[in-house]
Amino acid sequence: MNQNCFALEMAVRDYECDMQGIVNNAVYQHYLEHARHEFLKSIGIDFAAITALGINLVVLRVEIDYRISLISGDSFYVTVEPQRISPLRFGFLQTICRLPDRKQAVKALVTGTALNAKGRPQLTKELDPLLKDL
Amino acid sequence: MNQNCFALEMAVRDYECDMQGIVNNAVYQHYLEHARHEFLKSIGIDFAAITALGINLVVLRVEIDYRISLISGDSFYVTVEPQRISPLRFGFLQTICRLPDRKQAVKALVTGTALNAKGRPQLTKELDPLLKDL
Amino acid sequence: MNQNCFALEMAVRDYECDMQGIVNNAVYQHYLEHARHEFLKSIGIDFAAITALGINLVVLRVEIDYRISLISGDSFYVTVEPQRISPLRFGFLQTICRLPDRKQAVKALVTGTALNAKGRPQLTKELDPLLKDL
Amino acid sequence: MNQNCFALEMAVRDYECDMQGIVNNAVYQHYLEHARHEFLKSIGIDFAAITALGINLVVLRVEIDYRISLISGDSFYVTVEPQRISPLRFGFLQTICRLPDRKQAVKALVTGTALNAKGRPQLTKELDPLLKDL
Repeated sequence: MNQNCFALEMAVRDYECDMQGIVNNAVYQHYLEHARHEFLKSIGIDFAAITALGINLVVLRVEIDYRISLISGDSFYVTVEPQRISPLRFGFLQTICRLPDRKQAVKALVTGTALNAKGRPQLTKELDPLLKDL
Repeated sequence: MNQNCFALEMAVRDYECDMQGIVNNAVYQHYLEHARHEFLKSIGIDFAAITALGINLVVLRVEIDYRISLISGDSFYVTVEPQRISPLRFGFLQTICRLPDRKQAVKALVTGTALNAKGRPQLTKELDPLLKDL
Repeated sequence: MNQNCFALEMAVRDYECDMQGIVNNAVYQHYLEHARHEFLKSIGIDFAAITALGINLVVLRVEIDYRISLISGDSFYVTVEPQRISPLRFGFLQTICRLPDRKQAVKALVTGTALNAKGRPQLTKELDPLLKDL
Repeated sequence: MNQNCFALEMAVRDYECDMQGIVNNAVYQHYLEHARHEFLKSIGIDFAAITALGINLVVLRVEIDYRISLISGDSFYVTVEPQRISPLRFGFLQTICRLPDRKQAVKALVTGTALNAKGRPQLTKELDPLLKDL
């Protein structure tokens, strides 16, 4: 794996599969979100703590391409690569890759911002660990 | 509402809200999917029945723009407008609008196809009610 | 339906079904919770508002008997009958019945309490609409 | 940990927390189910494979006592201890314990059976690895 790219290993849980026997589409957003939050924690930004401060990290847009379906028993890893989108927006380029063959199951671009206590977009200093290198 | 546009009224359930007190991002995909399945049922395509036949309707790509957050107590409607994307792909233009002010909470484009029993894309005759007017 | 008993009509959503093609066990807890919150709202107790006041309604124990499985396309109603369990505990006797045959899918007893801002059980006056007749 | 007792380590994911900032009640059933399926896999019973054979492992009853609430950032382990309940029923005594203090968050008894292809309870030979020592 690219050394500049955060990756989190996970495994399919049976309750995440739907009547087609594959992981339900919406569940991949949970995988992507969980990996983003773990990435943020790894650079010193705790989602729950920042929420308690009145700063709400919110998703503005997601684009997800579904390539192959994950099924019961599959392991996979989720990557997170942060990007600067605009002065008030940041993004995360993410992939979900099945193990052990590393085939890409999902590729996604998630764009977000932070809302301050008044509900206005503002990239406060708490987000510096994320934004400083972008 | 546009008379050519299917709309389903729903309401936020408290367990769908996360620690920010707003509906979790992934839950909107559930809303969108449920409305698509109800739309398909309204034109004679039953998702569970078609799955039992070995035809798997799958999502290939989603694009979701999040405009305003829904919260506990909110009602909303979800619209579904089918589109032909390519010979082997169809799409659904969807919106989620809060009630009673009809402000758009989410706008989405969901692209899909059908996989036959061999896992290959094929728009079989069971999908005619969806495809014939597109 | 018993006139003293709150009932909420709902329908299975396809994403709630798992690879067995039936509603996943945990989802029934969501149905039960949603009906309880709607019941509470009907008597003037808004879960989100009361949470914002620092009063946390929490579940202490659930007992759920599963009788028949709900599947895609099923409609059902969820009943809620409040009960006094002890000075600091209240309960809800609940059923989930399939429509139109009214066969019982689930029977449950959910015991709860309220935690005040210090995390201690206390049935504050905000709960009077629930407790006064028990 | 007891050497006769299966235990699976997991961690809270932020999307599992609700507006109270704690893991939603129904999510614990997901934790319990996932640990049971991993336990079954560890003794040679694959839930998806057995489902594909037309054998449906179903839950008949759950009793869950909630002791402390898990929150964002918590790690925990889930234990699974199988029990014989009756000729046609088996059970799983389960706990969820927070780490690192090992405080019990949840204690549960989950009773189940297997339904054969005709929908009748039958503990077929595929379940021998589970039942032989009970």
